[in-house]
Amino acid sequence: MLSSKLRASPGGRKLASLAVRSLSGEPTAPAMNTEVPGPQSNKLKSDLDAIQSMDSVAFFVDYDKSFGNYVVDADGNSMLDVFTSISSVPIGYNHPNLLKAFDNPHDMKAMINRPALGVYPGVDWVERLNNVLMSVAPQGMDQITTMMCGSCANENSFKMMYFKYMDDLRGGRDFTQEEMDSCMVNKAPGTPQLSVLSFHGGFHGRTAASLSCTHSKPIHKLDVPLFDWPVADFPRYKYPLEEFTRENAAEDARCLAQVEDIIVNQQKIGNPCAGLIVEPIQSEGGDFHGSSEWFKGLQAICARHNVSYMIDEVQTGGGPTGKMWAFEHFDLPEAPDIVSFSKKMLTGGIYHKKSLRPKQSYRIFNTWVGDPGKLILLDAVLKTIKSDNLLKNTEEAGKVLLDGLKDMQNKFPQYLHSARGLGTFCAIDCDTGARRDQILTKMRNEGVNCGGCGASAIRLRPALIFTPAHANIFLDKMEKVLKSL
Amino acid sequence: MLSSKLRASPGGRKLASLAVRSLSGEPTAPAMNTEVPGPQSNKLKSDLDAIQSMDSVAFFVDYDKSFGNYVVDADGNSMLDVFTSISSVPIGYNHPNLLKAFDNPHDMKAMINRPALGVYPGVDWVERLNNVLMSVAPQGMDQITTMMCGSCANENSFKMMYFKYMDDLRGGRDFTQEEMDSCMVNKAPGTPQLSVLSFHGGFHGRTAASLSCTHSKPIHKLDVPLFDWPVADFPRYKYPLEEFTRENAAEDARCLAQVEDIIVNQQKIGNPCAGLIVEPIQSEGGDFHGSSEWFKGLQAICARHNVSYMIDEVQTGGGPTGKMWAFEHFDLPEAPDIVSFSKKMLTGGIYHKKSLRPKQSYRIFNTWVGDPGKLILLDAVLKTIKSDNLLKNTEEAGKVLLDGLKDMQNKFPQYLHSARGLGTFCAIDCDTGARRDQILTKMRNEGVNCGGCGASAIRLRPALIFTPAHANIFLDKMEKVLKSL
Repeated sequence: MLSSKLRASPGGRKLASLAVRSLSGEPTAPAMNTEVPGPQSNKLKSDLDAIQSMDSVAFFVDYDKSFGNYVVDADGNSMLDVFTSISSVPIGYNHPNLLKAFDNPHDMKAMINRPALGVYPGVDWVERLNNVLMSVAPQGMDQITTMMCGSCANENSFKMMYFKYMDDLRGGRDFTQEEMDSCMVNKAPGTPQLSVLSFHGGFHGRTAASLSCTHSKPIHKLDVPLFDWPVADFPRYKYPLEEFTRENAAEDARCLAQVEDIIVNQQKIGNPCAGLIVEPIQSEGGDFHGSSEWFKGLQAICARHNVSYMIDEVQTGGGPTGKMWAFEHFDLPEAPDIVSFSKKMLTGGIYHKKSLRPKQSYRIFNTWVGDPGKLILLDAVLKTIKSDNLLKNTEEAGKVLLDGLKDMQNKFPQYLHSARGLGTFCAIDCDTGARRDQILTKMRNEGVNCGGCGASAIRLRPALIFTPAHANIFLDKMEKVLKSL
Repeated sequence: MLSSKLRASPGGRKLASLAVRSLSGEPTAPAMNTEVPGPQSNKLKSDLDAIQSMDSVAFFVDYDKSFGNYVVDADGNSMLDVFTSISSVPIGYNHPNLLKAFDNPHDMKAMINRPALGVYPGVDWVERLNNVLMSVAPQGMDQITTMMCGSCANENSFKMMYFKYMDDLRGGRDFTQEEMDSCMVNKAPGTPQLSVLSFHGGFHGRTAASLSCTHSKPIHKLDVPLFDWPVADFPRYKYPLEEFTRENAAEDARCLAQVEDIIVNQQKIGNPCAGLIVEPIQSEGGDFHGSSEWFKGLQAICARHNVSYMIDEVQTGGGPTGKMWAFEHFDLPEAPDIVSFSKKMLTGGIYHKKSLRPKQSYRIFNTWVGDPGKLILLDAVLKTIKSDNLLKNTEEAGKVLLDGLKDMQNKFPQYLHSARGLGTFCAIDCDTGARRDQILTKMRNEGVNCGGCGASAIRLRPALIFTPAHANIFLDKMEKVLKSL
């Protein structure tokens, strides 16, 4: 699917050793007609506003014309997309393998007859779970439950952690009548006081329990009643990492000690932590990374206190870091207890260890419990990742991207610092939030659609078909924009 | 699509005046090979059990062979389906209009390129919202937000109610720094104490806030930390209604007084009700109906106390009661503030009044905010409902069904009582839960797939293409089963 094609970098940037490849028929550069949003997008925004409060719309997209790494908007602007619908487009727009995913009538029927998967799954459902989701299951995790989205995957993961915690506490005995009666009106003992430990700057979704663990921006949380759950510090490192080894190791130690203190304290105050949820890279919150030592330390603390260790791979999972799961970069001595996913995986879902299996029916359940149609698309995605070696591609494109960002911060230290990343999952901080917004706007008008995160970071979330050649286009545009400031 | 075809009722039951119609090519009766679940389903259950705790699976379905009102299982049993994946199959299996829904490449591209609808919607998104969802919007509700499922629709509806409540309380002023800082760690004043009033026996989903309002079965709730929110009595009527007018009116009055007392008390204890959520018919909880007077009374109480009035149409919406929205049976003087939907509507979503519109961006938001592919399917469903007059069909089939159930309870008063329903959304109570389960099992082995709800009710949730002829097949099988007890 990827044709071998060498592109010269206009800025003379060093090309990666890998032959640079693009999806056949993809544009070779952005092509702009108007500022973005242009008049057509603005007209549609105004139409939408009549029926929905959604000022967040950046522009309207022509999904017939968008292709590969290029998104085409309502005004005919063709932009290199390094944000991909908040990191949720795994192999670009209109990939031929996705366009033909439902050519087989059996698959079309599986999609249009979406069943209640917990009661009436299709005869091929177990095979699909095995061939698709279990084919990329993290090592040591042999259980899978599908869900509709990331928030829902997290909410249900929390439930698994509560069930295990309470079952351990009960020593495996049955529920009492008092427990069954009291839970019906949300009272103890059937409705216990339990908490999930999360981190400042983390993002885990927007339903009540997942939002209780989200701490990225006030606008996500204001006015919403939430659980009074503990929050710990996620390390904040100094960059470049190699120059601040000692300081960053001290930061890890401080943050780990705090986590353990909190877990002990929550026991004391009668609101024990059933689980801990953490992103491998805090994404919405500002692309903050944690070291392998820190993630190993968290796992050890959880094991010591019988707290389930849950890794939220909703944004990081599915390949953008150059590995299928970002936590694989950490060399944990054993798998985490739960890994949730969504976005690039197209379906929400939960991998977990057998120890987290609910012992009774109907505890992790809802009407749809996922969507077979999404597994059909995901099957095409995973086969393309394999056949086109897209993890390796992402690793190589990521090197070009990160090297380029480091060059850029050396050239423009007044605007940029702390370039960081794994694979193409890269970010760089601006001197101010206003600067970041200015750069994003100018980039878009130059034909590159980027996203921001945290207070002042630019985050890059291209598709897995983003090659070193695309990285160079991005870097050239960025350099042009920075020179214009 | 529906061919005119008169079926004689084997039991000699009276046929409705409307010409009885079936989807062309549909089986004319159940055809059974094995008990259900049969050996193939049992084998697949065991395979599934290796990777997922899902004992709730009834049988595995051959979605290639299922058609119309008939579901075909892994063992080749062809069953009349009056449960339809927990009421989520609107126009039966493999309806020709759904099979061709993606024939147009534009629609296929809209489905495979699922965007972040809150940032990068397709150029046809506004038109789709207007042509599909707004074409069936309840009168007086001009705002629409799509979501992935019913739980998520409810969680986001609650947020709209909190936002409005707190904005009113603030008198429209901006957030303070203290509010913005405190909400980041789930503390007051940014994270307020607010509640949503719900009803004993209600079901609204299984994520933390929606589960806090769910009170149908302990197994849904045990061990899950939830909000300490108030719960009121939903009326429990005596049947037949015409014989207990006075008693049932007193029950309405008692329940309304209780709701008002609770709302006043919640203010006093500092956990005010921002909203009230109620189903038009309590479905999971046991198919309990409320009178028009009761629903009107609730609306008046909410208006008096500035509490948002929310109706959850997740199970009742989309036509099964013979109207698009079940609450239309109540002749409310004005629209409720919020109506949530999912299941037969194929996408989750929220209709609401302008007064519930969030004033700031990114408050009702997530990555996908729905799925355009589901609107393409829903478009085909709504067009079929209109072209084939399926609401009228459902009303007529429902009359046959309910009359038949009333006959049945007269013939078998030792087993059955309290037949009730709107459209085909019918239920009947058994003398015990064990009897109900026994009847459901026997019915399935006779080739009719039914569901239960509450402690001892049988609930009927056929598709909208379920005709009086199908009702008679169901009733004949039921009579046979009851005679065998």
